[in-house]
Amino acid sequence: MALRNIKTILLHTTHPGNIGAAARALKNMALQQLILVQPKSYPDAHATARASGADDLLAKAKVCQTLEQAIADCHLVVGLSARSRKIAWPRLDVRSAAQLVWQVSQEGQVGVLYGRERTGLINEELDRCNYIVQIPANADYSSLNLAAAVQVFAYEIHQASLEQVPDPEIEAVPAEDMERFYQHLEQTLIALDFLNPDNPRKLTRRLRRLFNRARPDPQELKILRGILSATLKKC
Amino acid sequence: MALRNIKTILLHTTHPGNIGAAARALKNMALQQLILVQPKSYPDAHATARASGADDLLAKAKVCQTLEQAIADCHLVVGLSARSRKIAWPRLDVRSAAQLVWQVSQEGQVGVLYGRERTGLINEELDRCNYIVQIPANADYSSLNLAAAVQVFAYEIHQASLEQVPDPEIEAVPAEDMERFYQHLEQTLIALDFLNPDNPRKLTRRLRRLFNRARPDPQELKILRGILSATLKKC
Repeated sequence: MALRNIKTILLHTTHPGNIGAAARALKNMALQQLILVQPKSYPDAHATARASGADDLLAKAKVCQTLEQAIADCHLVVGLSARSRKIAWPRLDVRSAAQLVWQVSQEGQVGVLYGRERTGLINEELDRCNYIVQIPANADYSSLNLAAAVQVFAYEIHQASLEQVPDPEIEAVPAEDMERFYQHLEQTLIALDFLNPDNPRKLTRRLRRLFNRARPDPQELKILRGILSATLKKC
Repeated sequence: MALRNIKTILLHTTHPGNIGAAARALKNMALQQLILVQPKSYPDAHATARASGADDLLAKAKVCQTLEQAIADCHLVVGLSARSRKIAWPRLDVRSAAQLVWQVSQEGQVGVLYGRERTGLINEELDRCNYIVQIPANADYSSLNLAAAVQVFAYEIHQASLEQVPDPEIEAVPAEDMERFYQHLEQTLIALDFLNPDNPRKLTRRLRRLFNRARPDPQELKILRGILSATLKKC
């Protein structure tokens, strides 16, 4: 279990009680690293009180002056954000993000960023993230307490660590290989007179949706490409 | 959405801050009912402070003298417990329990019980539960803060409510239709000289696995069958 490679990084936290509660949430979920970037107050008796039996993890928290220092050795950085943003940072849903965090943490350090209590992560911090994660919530009241957000995501990472005995049979295919497959498929459907090349959109979109859902592994993709080649030979 | 039928019932809570934080967690996850059985202090300024923007939900909390009153109209009662118990109450994992809570709440009231901060639910309270739910946690430090446990389970109920909106576009195909598709596929692959009819097993098994994963809907299956027919015509 490499939950020890996951750094929870709290940026500019205002309320020390939240730092303590976050420490407890992490220890409950078997995470080990807490990093504080310019906390308003640390150490602090309010933090210690809320940490309860996680005072050891709290005491080991590392304080950094900049986000850059905190994430320097991270292979993957994800940021939690409550707000929908106009600029389209790449997004992942909570469970997929937790699975990815757990997977990458098998081989290296991973950073998970949480912003200020009131305003969350600012754009310059989001720019450092590979993915943004938003915890689904009440549209009328979507901003979770900081420690509550840490708890939910730590819980999902812990769940991922329990569920994700990596399946060696399902291996991702790079997007560009999927594109080549879709081109090959379209070319074949035209040769079969099955697809009207002047109006291919609706059919190809449906097929994309189907195969994207299936997420073929490299060997399966090779078989599908083989079938297309055999078909073209007959046309 | 019947999230309004779900009652979160906190029994004998000692720290009013936890009541406030629980109220916030509930409102964040669109749950609406908070019931307090003999809280040590309510109303309380610490609760209000931690409730943040959920002070309305906190103010509407109902105080009961007994658990019986609290659950009287509930069709289903589940209890959160951090401890493994010797007596075998029926158990559900967190996600299955959240799905069940959400399902039953479509038609009636559901109660979710949380015990005292230090000792959790006692046996007489567990006896009133249809199911016991334990949040998976660090074996060395498994007891979550009360409000954190409320947050995790409320989050899972909210996720269940989002996931279980049946997607009208993904409609299951009867197994016999899938069988007919696989026969059609096999026949086509043989006609393409892509499949050795004397030893078809490995290839067809791989393709079954791929398409079973994708779970085509009826219209997608019709498209796939159409492609196979067009291919056979060329052979």
